[in-house]
Amino acid sequence: MALYYDEVFEDSVRFGVKVKETLHSEQSEFQKVEVIDTTRFGRMLVIDGIFMTSERDEFFYHEMLVQPAMCTVAEPKSVLIIGGGDGGSAREVLRHAEVERCLMIEIDEAVVRVSKEWLPTIGRAWNDPRLEVRFANGVAFVKESESRAFDVILVDGSDPVGPAEVLFSKEFFEGCRRLLKPGGVLALQSESPIYFRDTFDQTQRRLMDAFEVVRPYFGPVPTYSAGIWSWTFCSDSVDPLKPLDARVEAMTTDSKLYNGDIHRAAFALPNYLRRTTTSG
Amino acid sequence: MALYYDEVFEDSVRFGVKVKETLHSEQSEFQKVEVIDTTRFGRMLVIDGIFMTSERDEFFYHEMLVQPAMCTVAEPKSVLIIGGGDGGSAREVLRHAEVERCLMIEIDEAVVRVSKEWLPTIGRAWNDPRLEVRFANGVAFVKESESRAFDVILVDGSDPVGPAEVLFSKEFFEGCRRLLKPGGVLALQSESPIYFRDTFDQTQRRLMDAFEVVRPYFGPVPTYSAGIWSWTFCSDSVDPLKPLDARVEAMTTDSKLYNGDIHRAAFALPNYLRRTTTSG
Repeated sequence: MALYYDEVFEDSVRFGVKVKETLHSEQSEFQKVEVIDTTRFGRMLVIDGIFMTSERDEFFYHEMLVQPAMCTVAEPKSVLIIGGGDGGSAREVLRHAEVERCLMIEIDEAVVRVSKEWLPTIGRAWNDPRLEVRFANGVAFVKESESRAFDVILVDGSDPVGPAEVLFSKEFFEGCRRLLKPGGVLALQSESPIYFRDTFDQTQRRLMDAFEVVRPYFGPVPTYSAGIWSWTFCSDSVDPLKPLDARVEAMTTDSKLYNGDIHRAAFALPNYLRRTTTSG
Repeated sequence: MALYYDEVFEDSVRFGVKVKETLHSEQSEFQKVEVIDTTRFGRMLVIDGIFMTSERDEFFYHEMLVQPAMCTVAEPKSVLIIGGGDGGSAREVLRHAEVERCLMIEIDEAVVRVSKEWLPTIGRAWNDPRLEVRFANGVAFVKESESRAFDVILVDGSDPVGPAEVLFSKEFFEGCRRLLKPGGVLALQSESPIYFRDTFDQTQRRLMDAFEVVRPYFGPVPTYSAGIWSWTFCSDSVDPLKPLDARVEAMTTDSKLYNGDIHRAAFALPNYLRRTTTSG
């Protein structure tokens, strides 16, 4: 019998999807990793009870994390992804012919293994020779790496509880800044500005301590349920509202969501968020 | 003991809010009208099991239904609201000093009575002398009214099942067109383009048969759960992307959400919707 799998937030709201079948469930070294088959969203990756991504709505998240940065930076040759074990972000990065190298640092090999097996439509670029996947601690990697190595850094982690909490620290953001070439861009998922308002505000403040340009941007992610999700674009100097026309056009052709209008619109700030976000 | 009240969509997804108390419940002539007190969103109006609005997130819906039309039409003196029994849309209309008359045609007196009693922060303009509330059938009203009577018409109905279904018909849209003055604007809620894609597409097509300018626009409504909601701006001639600066500025001051950037950004069309929406 089909049942609902509910993601519960602070015991005040819940979002549930009807499950046809649990395809995989394991307790990895770091977290509980599940794949469920749902009637509405197809297969879904669930980590520690939180919906990560699904076959049907993954593009809302991955295109918006990746394309604003990739379409705006001058030469996206060298890209670092921290997290992103489902492969969706790497796939979006590798759509760009300019990319010479994409290094993914994922802490949990289980996420990659399970995603390769059960979510092949999301991580379609695993065999791209420009992609290198390393199973390592992203924070330690950033701390130990040489400066000015990357044009773009994408932080594709889960909520700031459990293993991903350190991905929202001031030290980590400063490390990312150090690893970026001048004119490079960091983009990260920065939580729901509605349900996770405190985290959102704190993250913006910490980013503003590390970067000259800090601009949150917004879009819907249906399986994230809060109505709106945020990502943040950070740089020493790059204006997120000036994407490169040719690159935007190239990406628009094969994107499900992304185009130049969506890119610019995403940066519009509602009044209720204007107080916390004054940089950039 | 507190329990979750779930809104279920097509037995495939559900969105639940934790309820402290049911404040009111009645079966009116038309529908079941409830007010629940929730831990997350404050008091919520629920009609036939569907979340209509809540104290904490009502501005996401009401500002976006009302302000794009009101800030763009040249002289919004005479405004018609079909539905809108919670009073939030009338409140947004009456913020404009230019309004001389706002007529609300609500089919169900229970919605107004219950909203006045339990949701006074939403319908703050009930005592404004420019507002007239009539309990009547909106479709019949539109059919029988004289032409060219209104500068703005706002359709603030529930989902197109039950009493609100006729508010999505071709005849009704043509009637609205007839009631508008030249240069007037119709704005309506046009459902989730994700969960109600068929309704969204059909509504766009019907509107395009009745109006020269038909532009859907988008925004989050947290208690609507699908990640994104749509409204549609319709006119014989008015460009929704040219709001009047002075009016936008006046509204921005006291809005929780609305400003000129949000106005323009809302009209950005994601690729997955570009096929159906080619007018305007």
